[in-house]
Amino acid sequence: MTEPAKPIVAPPGLEGVAVAETTIGDVRGEEGFFHYRGYNAAELARQCSFEQVWHLLIEGELPDPEQTTKFREKTAQLRTLPEQVSRLLPALAEIDPFAPLEALRTSVSLAASVIGLQPTMDIPAEEVRREAIRMTALVPVLLTGLYRAHQGLGPVQADPNLGYAAAYLQMLTGERPDDEHARAVEKYLILTMDHGFNASTFTARVIASTGADLGSALVGAIGALSGPLHGGAPSRALHTLDEIGTEERAYDYLRDKVASGERLMGFGHRVYKTDDPRSTLLREVALQLGGEQAQFAQHVEQTALQVLNELKPGRRLYTNVEFYAGVVMNTAGIPREMFTPTFASSRTVGWTAAICEQAAHNRLIRPSAIYVGPQPPRPLPDGYGYV
Amino acid sequence: MTEPAKPIVAPPGLEGVAVAETTIGDVRGEEGFFHYRGYNAAELARQCSFEQVWHLLIEGELPDPEQTTKFREKTAQLRTLPEQVSRLLPALAEIDPFAPLEALRTSVSLAASVIGLQPTMDIPAEEVRREAIRMTALVPVLLTGLYRAHQGLGPVQADPNLGYAAAYLQMLTGERPDDEHARAVEKYLILTMDHGFNASTFTARVIASTGADLGSALVGAIGALSGPLHGGAPSRALHTLDEIGTEERAYDYLRDKVASGERLMGFGHRVYKTDDPRSTLLREVALQLGGEQAQFAQHVEQTALQVLNELKPGRRLYTNVEFYAGVVMNTAGIPREMFTPTFASSRTVGWTAAICEQAAHNRLIRPSAIYVGPQPPRPLPDGYGYV
Repeated sequence: MTEPAKPIVAPPGLEGVAVAETTIGDVRGEEGFFHYRGYNAAELARQCSFEQVWHLLIEGELPDPEQTTKFREKTAQLRTLPEQVSRLLPALAEIDPFAPLEALRTSVSLAASVIGLQPTMDIPAEEVRREAIRMTALVPVLLTGLYRAHQGLGPVQADPNLGYAAAYLQMLTGERPDDEHARAVEKYLILTMDHGFNASTFTARVIASTGADLGSALVGAIGALSGPLHGGAPSRALHTLDEIGTEERAYDYLRDKVASGERLMGFGHRVYKTDDPRSTLLREVALQLGGEQAQFAQHVEQTALQVLNELKPGRRLYTNVEFYAGVVMNTAGIPREMFTPTFASSRTVGWTAAICEQAAHNRLIRPSAIYVGPQPPRPLPDGYGYV
Repeated sequence: MTEPAKPIVAPPGLEGVAVAETTIGDVRGEEGFFHYRGYNAAELARQCSFEQVWHLLIEGELPDPEQTTKFREKTAQLRTLPEQVSRLLPALAEIDPFAPLEALRTSVSLAASVIGLQPTMDIPAEEVRREAIRMTALVPVLLTGLYRAHQGLGPVQADPNLGYAAAYLQMLTGERPDDEHARAVEKYLILTMDHGFNASTFTARVIASTGADLGSALVGAIGALSGPLHGGAPSRALHTLDEIGTEERAYDYLRDKVASGERLMGFGHRVYKTDDPRSTLLREVALQLGGEQAQFAQHVEQTALQVLNELKPGRRLYTNVEFYAGVVMNTAGIPREMFTPTFASSRTVGWTAAICEQAAHNRLIRPSAIYVGPQPPRPLPDGYGYV
């Protein structure tokens, strides 16, 4: 009898373990920089439309103007739910309490079946990409349909001339958004499409590695995103702003919070040890949108950084993506319960790009574990028998 | 600017990388042995009821007779779907083509929302276990309800005095199964509850590591199980038996198949390099059940091993769990399209045990990747602008 090979023991949580090669993008936490296929993601958000960056991530290259027009037209036409899906959305929106991310998980699973997504290993890469684009186009339709059904309202068909971001706002509110709001949300969406090998992206890859269909991988990713440790709940930072209420109360409130050991929502990130490039741009976007809340948020931010510097010197805690994301979405008319679902919508671009990459260069992801329980073979207790 | 820490590069597919400690069980492929909490799994299947082994995996210890009775009663009472779930099953069963594993994915997601499963990190371990037992009890109710709805039939409430396996058959066929069939299926179900760190179990752990609810983790695991590379499609081996048809045709059929480089369904396993202990027991179970198919299967198995020995000497290809699993389920009256879903049902015990363990000793699983695309910062193409 040969001894089994000793497994390599990975650090807890696989931290710092590279489990794949990717050409999708990367996060350089120490530099405060992240990119999509080599392009600075913040610059893409400033200069490009959602569709241009979506094309970059899913097709591999930025589209030229003609390709952009075609991609916009094609994806706008995909904003229609199969009847067997739209018929069931009201029932999903009735579940109490309304949890839009859970309802999205169920409805994406349903849509994947109705559309008939195939095991990724049984279809060519081009077909996986086609399915990816279709599902990415459907996620905002599902989310807004669920939200409106929960409000007792019917779905709104977006103007096909609108891009992804403006269409999302129109499907959500029923009204054509003003251009400034749509552009602000578009920048937020581009900034959150992808962010390295986070837990939901990794989940999507593990599922895709079994050769399963894209829907199975997406559903798993949505589930992982719903976990509180995944990070990213922009409504929490807004809640802090509400609690503070006025500029004069900021210093005492924040100092009490930090002194008592509580975590400040909207500050600190596992990867960034300097300014989060997403918060830098979202601060600018929020201030451009104007309004009292952005000014107030900036005051709170400065006060918080002062307090953190006083009480936790040297800890390098900076404003993260949550802080201004909530202000931007709130100003643009997105209700708070839809903040994280909106994030899921843009992140679907990154998830599907990861699924396509995994499917194209696949190998089953199957690690092992170290058994540390009672040593086998353990005899059954005396007289133990079938009951 | 400091250089980011160099990541540890893991072998492809994380093969041989231990990503966690576990007390649930282990597979010793070279020895042809696997165990649950130290007890030989095949011995548990021979000696114990489904409920006893379920209790072992989820509560950590084999129950004494009194605990067994209580656990049986408790879990039998959990075989009731919430009305908001049962009402939607017919619509899920209508999707064409009927894919029971996909319908299970959707209905588990739905049931998790309706029941209101909480993020595992927000609730005590005991509550996670309670949710785990409830969802495990519901999976066969969902599966059989979906299957019957697809047949145009209503759901069947199982006799509360029946254990898991017999109740499953009753809910599926509408008739009280004979004891021999129920016991044969019960052995199959116990043998397939868990099997080390397979891809679906790992998926469940990655999702649970974000602190997400047990439903999200289960839904991801079901998705991973649906992947063709996960292995385990007992209907494929049965299909081979059908194609062969008669004993006289076996040798030529199998020799042609192997000589032309095709894989023989039901033979070979990534981990076992000797007899798969599951196939050994299932062969015995199939032959005990009797019937022509079991005899025929044994003839085909012996012929296949002879052919493999002739054409691929030294390759150590043995009969795997699929081969006799199909014969056992078929003889017990389980339709072929329900073979893999039946496997999902028993594997839910292992998944939920893994989720409970992950939740109790949690750390976010977040590996990294090596970026190998065009090097950043890549400038936007000349004149590139917003379209």
